Amino acid sequence: MEVTRTLARYVIESRYADIPGKVKHEAARSFLNWVGCAVGASRHETVECALAALAEFSGPAQATVLGRGERLDIMQAALMNGITSHTFDFDDTHLKTVIHPSGPVASAILALAERTPVSGEDFLHAFILGVEVECRIGNAVYPEHYNVGWHITGTAGVFGAAAAAGRLLGLDEQQMVWAFGIAATQSAGLREMFGTMCKPFHPGNAARNGLLAALLAQKNFTSSSQGIEAKRGFAHVLSTGFRPEEITAGLGKTFELSLNTYKPFACGIVEHPAIDGCIQLRNEHKLKAEDIESIALKAHPLVLELTGKKTPQTGLEGKFSVYHSSAVAIIYGAAGEAEYSDAVVREARVVALRDRVSAAVEPGVHEDQVHVTIRLKDGRTLEKYVEHAVGSLGKPMSDAALESKFRAFSEGILSQAESDRLIRLCWTIAGLKDAGEVARASVPASAAGKRKAS
Amino acid sequence: MEVTRTLARYVIESRYADIPGKVKHEAARSFLNWVGCAVGASRHETVECALAALAEFSGPAQATVLGRGERLDIMQAALMNGITSHTFDFDDTHLKTVIHPSGPVASAILALAERTPVSGEDFLHAFILGVEVECRIGNAVYPEHYNVGWHITGTAGVFGAAAAAGRLLGLDEQQMVWAFGIAATQSAGLREMFGTMCKPFHPGNAARNGLLAALLAQKNFTSSSQGIEAKRGFAHVLSTGFRPEEITAGLGKTFELSLNTYKPFACGIVEHPAIDGCIQLRNEHKLKAEDIESIALKAHPLVLELTGKKTPQTGLEGKFSVYHSSAVAIIYGAAGEAEYSDAVVREARVVALRDRVSAAVEPGVHEDQVHVTIRLKDGRTLEKYVEHAVGSLGKPMSDAALESKFRAFSEGILSQAESDRLIRLCWTIAGLKDAGEVARASVPASAAGKRKAS
Repeated sequence: MEVTRTLARYVIESRYADIPGKVKHEAARSFLNWVGCAVGASRHETVECALAALAEFSGPAQATVLGRGERLDIMQAALMNGITSHTFDFDDTHLKTVIHPSGPVASAILALAERTPVSGEDFLHAFILGVEVECRIGNAVYPEHYNVGWHITGTAGVFGAAAAAGRLLGLDEQQMVWAFGIAATQSAGLREMFGTMCKPFHPGNAARNGLLAALLAQKNFTSSSQGIEAKRGFAHVLSTGFRPEEITAGLGKTFELSLNTYKPFACGIVEHPAIDGCIQLRNEHKLKAEDIESIALKAHPLVLELTGKKTPQTGLEGKFSVYHSSAVAIIYGAAGEAEYSDAVVREARVVALRDRVSAAVEPGVHEDQVHVTIRLKDGRTLEKYVEHAVGSLGKPMSDAALESKFRAFSEGILSQAESDRLIRLCWTIAGLKDAGEVARASVPASAAGKRKAS
Repeated sequence: MEVTRTLARYVIESRYADIPGKVKHEAARSFLNWVGCAVGASRHETVECALAALAEFSGPAQATVLGRGERLDIMQAALMNGITSHTFDFDDTHLKTVIHPSGPVASAILALAERTPVSGEDFLHAFILGVEVECRIGNAVYPEHYNVGWHITGTAGVFGAAAAAGRLLGLDEQQMVWAFGIAATQSAGLREMFGTMCKPFHPGNAARNGLLAALLAQKNFTSSSQGIEAKRGFAHVLSTGFRPEEITAGLGKTFELSLNTYKPFACGIVEHPAIDGCIQLRNEHKLKAEDIESIALKAHPLVLELTGKKTPQTGLEGKFSVYHSSAVAIIYGAAGEAEYSDAVVREARVVALRDRVSAAVEPGVHEDQVHVTIRLKDGRTLEKYVEHAVGSLGKPMSDAALESKFRAFSEGILSQAESDRLIRLCWTIAGLKDAGEVARASVPASAAGKRKAS
């Protein structure tokens, strides 16, 4: 079966009108979430390091580093935005493959869209196709490929970036085939790097190299025509299992974007039900920490095993404490990056409430479930059973929740009005004349005009 | 065993004075051969495509594309020179691993040396260390890694480039460890790409990405500290076999550059004994094609199996014809790129002589051996037994032969005086105040001053 060619043909022949409205909306949700993550981490040490190392070598000021003033050549901008969008590990997740789909794809084509303006419709279409390509390739080799030790967001992401960029560049079929080959021969990224700056480097690198693949193919730089399926191609060399039909079956009929999910909270997914339950009770009953006598959780064993840290001392340790997470859920009604700062973890009222949280294993409670019982000082008892934690496929984050998550990221970087405008542009991306407007709108007035990292 | 750290420590602590003179001379030989290959292919379609795609995105005009007028940022220059130097597949070969060692390493650091001038001594030292790193990593995983389907020049080359660039950038031990980690997580390149433009792209990409690794590490961009040996690090993920002691044993005592070889002829290595034998007889007896009645070869079976094409029609087919190769050896006394042009393959006197060549399998003749019997029209018979073909470790190309090879490449690109000067600079690299002088000297006066590919 001609896997690479079949996929290439689909990418160049797909028509925007044939894509279901729900998929288009999910694409806008993924894109909004991605922009927020990138803006939110735009001041992080990881991107500061990368900019300090590389800005000197940038070509023309073609494209925006989201949330910042620097404008870099498109290859470097793709790298930087891929890095920032994954720095908090808070971007979207295709749970079937644990690919973070938006980073490689959106980073590549938003940069490209600033060099050669494209309509929002063409942009969103290319984004959908890029995500489709990377997730289908992921489906064809997951879990074997991941188990070998590959960080699939990097290894599959480079194909997604090549597909989306190639679509916008107007590659013909053979050029798209070559783009996939050039992507295949750059596919890289090791799980060994988790916990270091190289983890967010992977989607950045996938974006940069996928874009490179499409640009080279556009000039007829040749490659194998079976880059994915050949005996010495991507799938057989980088995986011990390969199901090519996962790539080719139902192309244009099913869309992997429908399976995309968004994390509401900046911590391990096993804590999400408890946080969800506490926030619900807080909002329903206008709870304040001082009203609460105790919080009791009945949860899945993994919650205690992975996040049972009773007295966290740092922000990072706070992420591994379901006690801390429940306390901030009540006090702040949120569990974003801000609630896992060192300062918040040490805040007196957070510590005081945290010490009144208990957790026990309850047989029969699933991983995305929890029972929360809050005893109030006035004697009342409040109960909440969470059947599917928010953010799971069973209870996806609402559009409004995605907006709130975005605002938590952009606060302190963008003004309220700037956030409003950027959110609106993301939601209405399909109607924009020039998709690159989103990138430029991510730059606060205060930072605009900076050329390079100093 | 701390493989990555041990290797990093060696690279930063090595002293030039401790490296044997023979190794330094071999480094100069490798470098001369590499510069020649790069200049020779500097007008090839492969690099024209790459420049057409990428020059637009180049940063400052920091570094030379060898043999051409363009000056690009160092990352792009490293990519281009890595591509050109491997385009003819005529660069050096570490036969133990089939790595082409110079491409990734020299491409990275010659570009770097034009941005931050370094002495020729420091340059040659970094080159030696880079080759040592990539070949030792290759030794530790060859042949299993190659058999999986990896193009080892790309996958190991990125470490060599990182090591050499990191040495010149003055990385400390931890930074060098990180540079190896960042290299590991970019290690890529599939054998599936052989026969396409992606093959020479691999050393170019290794140079570009190894340089990137060193530059990021210099700014404390973090990575794993066991990028090579960890359970999910380079060796275990990209190979089914790993012998870490091949990396760490005898560091600073043995040098892989001593095992480097250079191809004298632009075709498959199995034809080299026949070409060698024919050229020797030609030169010893001042033979002309019209004096020759017939040429009979007794050779290893692989010669007929791989290069048994009786009536080649194109230059590329000529490379797979021991008959054509023997004919040009007599007529031109050479078998370089020029002798494998379409025109030469169709030349009447070449075709006429080719048809008088026969080849037979002879039991007991090894792969780098041949018996050549030439019957002359005057009745005489000439014999030559080649025990080790020129270019093998048993009979390395002489310095003079490397110079001739260089001149065959530079002819038509550089003037005689320009070639003379460039050759002299390569031989005397260790004494140069500014190693970047070599790069600038590779540009013919006629091409100097061009900024970008048009």
